[in-house]
Amino acid sequence: MSAQAAIAEKTTFINGLNVQQALDTIAALKADKSLAKFRFRAKNRWVSGGENRSTIRDFYGAGVEDTSRMKPFEFVNGEPPVLLGDNEGANPVEFLLHALAGCVTTTFVLHAMARGIAIRELSTELEGNIDLQGLLGLDGAVFPGYEQIRIKMHVKADCSDEALDDLLAYTQGHSPVCNTVCQPVPVVIERV
Amino acid sequence: MSAQAAIAEKTTFINGLNVQQALDTIAALKADKSLAKFRFRAKNRWVSGGENRSTIRDFYGAGVEDTSRMKPFEFVNGEPPVLLGDNEGANPVEFLLHALAGCVTTTFVLHAMARGIAIRELSTELEGNIDLQGLLGLDGAVFPGYEQIRIKMHVKADCSDEALDDLLAYTQGHSPVCNTVCQPVPVVIERV
Repeated sequence: MSAQAAIAEKTTFINGLNVQQALDTIAALKADKSLAKFRFRAKNRWVSGGENRSTIRDFYGAGVEDTSRMKPFEFVNGEPPVLLGDNEGANPVEFLLHALAGCVTTTFVLHAMARGIAIRELSTELEGNIDLQGLLGLDGAVFPGYEQIRIKMHVKADCSDEALDDLLAYTQGHSPVCNTVCQPVPVVIERV
Repeated sequence: MSAQAAIAEKTTFINGLNVQQALDTIAALKADKSLAKFRFRAKNRWVSGGENRSTIRDFYGAGVEDTSRMKPFEFVNGEPPVLLGDNEGANPVEFLLHALAGCVTTTFVLHAMARGIAIRELSTELEGNIDLQGLLGLDGAVFPGYEQIRIKMHVKADCSDEALDDLLAYTQGHSPVCNTVCQPVPVVIERV
């Protein structure tokens, strides 16, 4: 019996995740790798100035179009007054930090479960630098994106500090949003 | 008189943006480049499983700590049932698409204003591919992040198709989130 199977027999949930469902999912993906291919989507509509709104609902994954969401999620991008807006919502570079925080957290918790580590508390603080001369085209030598993003993670768990550090390094190498930021990912924009 | 100054005299708002405020901002940044250095932030707390929550409020920019937001924005990351969640919120890779859509849109509208182009309608549809074998560590050769993100942009504006295509290429080169995705950006994670 594998360590994971042994965990599954002893308890149904670790870190709020259904262990048996996780094992079944992994077994299914191993049997048919095409089930691991997902396509996530968003639709966005400009309102005015720095305000625009996204709806997120459907995606393709595990071989089918997902139908689990009764209605779409809706999110509002805005800008603060210093960036010509009226705080209609957080701004896009802030939403990127929310996405990154969430992905690092979920990846950490998921692989903790796979290792049989129970997480008691987990929180993060993120900060990233942007020089707006890049966005504004005032200096071609200034990079328009985040120069760097720093994440401070506070975590309490039933394991050694060494085990946490190993899990954190693994998380950094496997988090989808973290790797979309750390590595170059092609963005293709087409006018239709 | 520059083209921008001429626009400012004729009209106060283009695309919902205050032209005089934009010109004043750019003049201030040119006079003191340190004002262009911004630091954006988010705090996130794990709830359970794939659910976690971010609060976003303060940031540093234009030489000061911003105090314009009376209360923090709050966002919930979740996962759909097929990814072991209960649709508590959109998931982190979907929030990344919302951030990307918003940033490309705002960058487009901002530089349209600078060129005197009035936008009438603007909407985008985004889709990105992720192979979850990467996240799950099932195949070390599979990239964990988005393999590619495609954006279809529908735009109606008072200018030629050529001018729109030129503006779109400029947008792609100057959007902070787009460049954070397209280019490798360092993410430093530290346990505290």
